[in-house]
Amino acid sequence: MTDRQGKVFILTGLPGSGKTTVLEAALETLKSLGLGEVVLVNYGTVMFEEAKSSGLVENRDQMRSLPAEIQRKIQRSAAEKIANMARDKIVIVDTHMLIRTPEGFLPGLPMWVVEALCPNIIILVEAFPEEIAGRRSKDTTRNRDVESVEDINLHQQMCRSAALACAEIAGSTVKIIMNHDGKAKEAAAETVKLFKSLKR
Amino acid sequence: MTDRQGKVFILTGLPGSGKTTVLEAALETLKSLGLGEVVLVNYGTVMFEEAKSSGLVENRDQMRSLPAEIQRKIQRSAAEKIANMARDKIVIVDTHMLIRTPEGFLPGLPMWVVEALCPNIIILVEAFPEEIAGRRSKDTTRNRDVESVEDINLHQQMCRSAALACAEIAGSTVKIIMNHDGKAKEAAAETVKLFKSLKR
Amino acid sequence: MTDRQGKVFILTGLPGSGKTTVLEAALETLKSLGLGEVVLVNYGTVMFEEAKSSGLVENRDQMRSLPAEIQRKIQRSAAEKIANMARDKIVIVDTHMLIRTPEGFLPGLPMWVVEALCPNIIILVEAFPEEIAGRRSKDTTRNRDVESVEDINLHQQMCRSAALACAEIAGSTVKIIMNHDGKAKEAAAETVKLFKSLKR
Repeated sequence: MTDRQGKVFILTGLPGSGKTTVLEAALETLKSLGLGEVVLVNYGTVMFEEAKSSGLVENRDQMRSLPAEIQRKIQRSAAEKIANMARDKIVIVDTHMLIRTPEGFLPGLPMWVVEALCPNIIILVEAFPEEIAGRRSKDTTRNRDVESVEDINLHQQMCRSAALACAEIAGSTVKIIMNHDGKAKEAAAETVKLFKSLKR
Repeated sequence: MTDRQGKVFILTGLPGSGKTTVLEAALETLKSLGLGEVVLVNYGTVMFEEAKSSGLVENRDQMRSLPAEIQRKIQRSAAEKIANMARDKIVIVDTHMLIRTPEGFLPGLPMWVVEALCPNIIILVEAFPEEIAGRRSKDTTRNRDVESVEDINLHQQMCRSAALACAEIAGSTVKIIMNHDGKAKEAAAETVKLFKSLKR
Repeated sequence: MTDRQGKVFILTGLPGSGKTTVLEAALETLKSLGLGEVVLVNYGTVMFEEAKSSGLVENRDQMRSLPAEIQRKIQRSAAEKIANMARDKIVIVDTHMLIRTPEGFLPGLPMWVVEALCPNIIILVEAFPEEIAGRRSKDTTRNRDVESVEDINLHQQMCRSAALACAEIAGSTVKIIMNHDGKAKEAAAETVKLFKSLKR
């Protein structure tokens, strides 16, 4: 970790965890507090931009068909780009800890990404599996896979383990933010407290 | 990860998980589907062959008495040998995620092995702890330690965490295949689907 | 891992797990057994001594205000110093797997420390969360945070995952020692057995 003035926060949460809602509320509060520059980046978007500017792809769908070795290089350079932003800013990286695929749980932050990002805090936005299932069933705008409550629970548990492996690699802390139904404000307030805690 | 044409699957499961049964059924289906060359290797056997051909040991029992540093070298060269096979083949590595020893849970795939193998998918064959205990008690051919249902549950949980640490290191996916009593066919079919998914 | 004659044990446990009690009882037995030289080190203390002898700090409170990069260097050199002791001795490192901070769970043994220490066994002293809560409430000598039984359970679960990530990095075993109420003697006996098992 270079001794940056800024900080890197990794924000993760299952689909239906309310990650985006919590993040937006937290950002609004941060702005009203005038807490310096906070940059929000979507890791997948930065990766796509890196690949596009290298002439490797033209659209996002082509990303998946890149050879594994090339994908790793892009992942790493995207991570380095983000780490660079954090030299003097608070950077929040919106991403996934584990992506559910037919081949199993895929790490969103494999070792070479974690090492390059060197996050200060890894946030897991969580809720009861039943709450997540309920939110997903109500959300008709997104075409989400139907996962059982048990599967959601497993996914969340697996994310915790993956987060701890990342923490071991980078020396980051792992913070669980509970976002229960009707408690998004409280979750946002807790997130703000986290951002402020590292603002020196 | 070199951009190999083949793939590496790590197949793990507690004694009594039915890993071997699932694997054999899956291999049979793969053969009947004519899905290219599938090589099955036992990691411990490859390690022993490496040590033997280096003149370090004459029989398998001597493996344990090798100094730690030598053991690591053999582990790594065995992993490299297997990774090499995967250049143009599907390689299934039969091994253990965590071995229960009097000194605690020992990783079957420590970092230097995972890095050398660079598996595409890490498979955990699981069953309910009660089912595993039941299968073990019926299996009188092998001299297995008697573990309580609680201990089996713990072992299985620990394997999940270890698998996720491996996944973070290598960027592999982690797939849990449930092999419930009387459902070996379904488990084998799911395994076949996995092998086919990565066959491009 | 250099092929040391000695061994490194990492001893961890939540506040209230009874780690110290178990350790003291184990050390007493080891002494009475005449089991060679056993050195007990507190990782935080070794770090402080390293920083002090480098002229970086004068007292322990100043440790936290050191820049992250410097802290890492001290962590690593402290770990190397301890690993060096283990060339011909049994070294028990008293530390924490995960420290609860307002920013989340902080790894006490990040990767660069684990790699330098290269522990043989990572011990997790555990108890039922209710037992830990009970012990904490009775202990009025230390100013401990009040954590709910649920939080203690989470902390303990997270420690297991972190320990497995460490084990993957260093190839160590992970041993859970249960220290239930009134069973400290049994826990100490189990710990002694572990120490003896690696004494060759």
